[in-house]
Amino acid sequence: MGRGEDTLNEILAQPRAWDRVLKDFEEQKEDIKSLFDKGNFEKIVFTGCGSSHYLALSAAAIFQQFTDIEAIGVPASEVFLFPKALFSKQRKYLLVPISRSGETSETVKAANFFLETFKGDILPVSCYEESSLAKLSNRSLISFDGKEKSVVMTKSFTSMLLATQLCAATVSGDQDFYQQLRLLPSRGEKVVEKYKTSLEEIAQNANLNEFIYLGSGSYYGLACESMLKIKEMAYVSSEAYHFLEFRHGPISIIGEDSLVVCFLSNSGIDYQKKLLGELRSLGARTLIIAEQREEDIAKNADYLVTLDSNLSDYARLLLYMPFVHLLAYYKAIAKEVNPDSPKNLSQVVKL
Amino acid sequence: MGRGEDTLNEILAQPRAWDRVLKDFEEQKEDIKSLFDKGNFEKIVFTGCGSSHYLALSAAAIFQQFTDIEAIGVPASEVFLFPKALFSKQRKYLLVPISRSGETSETVKAANFFLETFKGDILPVSCYEESSLAKLSNRSLISFDGKEKSVVMTKSFTSMLLATQLCAATVSGDQDFYQQLRLLPSRGEKVVEKYKTSLEEIAQNANLNEFIYLGSGSYYGLACESMLKIKEMAYVSSEAYHFLEFRHGPISIIGEDSLVVCFLSNSGIDYQKKLLGELRSLGARTLIIAEQREEDIAKNADYLVTLDSNLSDYARLLLYMPFVHLLAYYKAIAKEVNPDSPKNLSQVVKL
Repeated sequence: MGRGEDTLNEILAQPRAWDRVLKDFEEQKEDIKSLFDKGNFEKIVFTGCGSSHYLALSAAAIFQQFTDIEAIGVPASEVFLFPKALFSKQRKYLLVPISRSGETSETVKAANFFLETFKGDILPVSCYEESSLAKLSNRSLISFDGKEKSVVMTKSFTSMLLATQLCAATVSGDQDFYQQLRLLPSRGEKVVEKYKTSLEEIAQNANLNEFIYLGSGSYYGLACESMLKIKEMAYVSSEAYHFLEFRHGPISIIGEDSLVVCFLSNSGIDYQKKLLGELRSLGARTLIIAEQREEDIAKNADYLVTLDSNLSDYARLLLYMPFVHLLAYYKAIAKEVNPDSPKNLSQVVKL
Repeated sequence: MGRGEDTLNEILAQPRAWDRVLKDFEEQKEDIKSLFDKGNFEKIVFTGCGSSHYLALSAAAIFQQFTDIEAIGVPASEVFLFPKALFSKQRKYLLVPISRSGETSETVKAANFFLETFKGDILPVSCYEESSLAKLSNRSLISFDGKEKSVVMTKSFTSMLLATQLCAATVSGDQDFYQQLRLLPSRGEKVVEKYKTSLEEIAQNANLNEFIYLGSGSYYGLACESMLKIKEMAYVSSEAYHFLEFRHGPISIIGEDSLVVCFLSNSGIDYQKKLLGELRSLGARTLIIAEQREEDIAKNADYLVTLDSNLSDYARLLLYMPFVHLLAYYKAIAKEVNPDSPKNLSQVVKL
C-alpha cells in the first residue's frame, strides 16, 4: 500500500501555490476590475461540483460580504436542471463556474447552458488554462500551481478559493483585505509546520470514528469541504453543519466516538463558545481551530489549534484547511488506506 | 419503553392537518396577495433552524420557481451573525421566519434583528398563533393542526411547507398549481395506507445502518429533512446530498450497509436514472420514491414507492415525506428506541 505521498506533498505545498496565485492575480487585477465595472452585475452565481461546490459556498459569502453584490453558491447540476429556481428574469447575473480540471461535465454544461439561455458573462475558475471551461471565456482565473496528481482536491481548493477572495478584494476596493491576503503564504508556512505532529496524534486515536465539522458564514463551505476530505481519503463517517444548527437535531447522534472540529470565527464567537461546553458534556471530543488562545475556549478543547495570524475572519479562511487536510491524510494512513487512490472516485467526474 | 405512539399518530395525521391548512389559507388568500402587491419585494429570505431551515430551502426553491421573485433559504443564526453576506443594501426583502413553536430563540432573534436593521416586512410561519414570533407581525401563516406532542417534527413540517406553497401559488397567480395543492389530503391518505407495511419491512433490515437521501431542486430540502428525521428518531448515521453531487466524493463511502433513498422528480429524472445503476453496482440498496413505475427505474430499485398522484413535481412534494417519516419511525422501533423522546433534544431550542 502506498503512503499517499502525492496527497501529503500537495497539502504541504499549499502556501507556495498561494504565492503563485497572488503573483498571477496582480497581472489580472485591472482586467477583473473592468469586467465588473462594465458588467454592472446584480448577482454573482458561483457554481461547481463536490469540493468546487463547497468552494462556491465560501466564495459567495465572502464576495457579498465585501462587495454588497448579491452572491450565492450552488451545485452545477442545479443550474441546468432547475434554472427557474435560481435565476430571475429581472436580474443581470455573472456566473463563476469552478472546476479544478475545467472538464467536470456538469460544470461545463452549466456554463454552456448559462451562456445560451441568459447570454450573460462568465468568469471560469480552474487550474488548467486550456480546459473546455477556461476556453468558454476570454477571461478566467487560473491557479497554475493548484494542479494536482492526487484525486482528492487539497491545494487546488485553497488556490482557487484565494483567487475568488482576491476578486472580492479588487471589486470592493478593500485595500486592507487585499493586503491581508498577501500575507497568507508566510502565515501558512508557519502554522502548518507547528501543528503537523499533533494532527498525526489526533488521527491515530482509533476510538474517533465520527467526524463532525462546524462552521458558520463563509466557514460553512470549509466545514462541508472538510467533511468531504475525510470521507474521500479515509472512508470515515463525517458531517458538516452551520455552527448553531448542530443543536437543532444532529446533536442527537453525538457520542464518545465523535470528534467535533470547530472552526471559530470572530464574528460568531460568542454564540459558538456556548456550544463548545455542551459538546463536551455529551461525551464528544473537540478539536478547536481558532485565531488565538482564550481561556474559555481552551477549557473546552481536547485539541486546540491557534492560528495567531493577525488576519481577519475573511482573510485567514484558507489557513484552516491544511489542518483538516492533514487530519484526513493521517487518518487514512492510520487506517492503512491510500489517500492517493480513493475507491469509487476519479479526478474528473463525467456525466 | 414507549412505542412512540405520539410520533406515529402525528405521521399518520398529516393529510388531515393539510386539509386544515388549505381551509385556513382560503381565508387569508386576499391578505397575502395584498402583502405582496404592496410590498414589491425584490427578494424573499426564508429562515429557520433545523427542520425549519430545511423547510426554508424547499420553500425558497418553489417560491422562486413560480413567482420569479428571488428567494433563498438560510439558517436563522446566519441572519443575525452574518447579515452582510445575506442582505444587500440595494434590495427590498421580505423575511419569512419559520418555527413550529414560534419560540425558537435564534429564529425570533433573526426576525427581531431584521425588523430593527432593515425595517422590512416579515411573514412568520408557525403552529402557534400566540407565539413570540407570530406576534411580531399583524400577518402570519399558522398551521393550527400542525401542533405536535412529539419532539421530532413531522406533520408540522409538511403543514408549514404547504402554507408556503399556497403562498407561492397565490403570489404567482398559478391557478393550476393552487388546484393541485388542494388534492394533497386525498392523495396523501391513499399512498400512506398503501405502503405502511413495506416501510416497516425495510426498517427491520438490521443490515442497513447508513441512510443516504438524494434530492435536487426543491427536493433537496426534503432530503436534508429526511436525513435529520432518521438521526433524531433512530440515531442512525445519515446524510443528504443534491442528487448528482453524490458522485462527487460522497460516493466513496457507499457500501453494503447503505440504503440510498432517492427522491425522483420529473425535471431531473434523466440524469437521476443514470446514477441509480451506479449505486447498485457499488453494493448499496436503493429505496426509490417516484411518481410512477417505469421499467428502467424499477430494475434499479430494491424498494420502490410510486405515488401515482398525477400532480406536478412542485405540488406532490409533501407526499414523499410520510414515507421517510415512517422509515425513521420503524427503524427506531426496530432498534428499540423511543422516537417520542429522543436523547439530547427538546421541543424548543433556546440559545
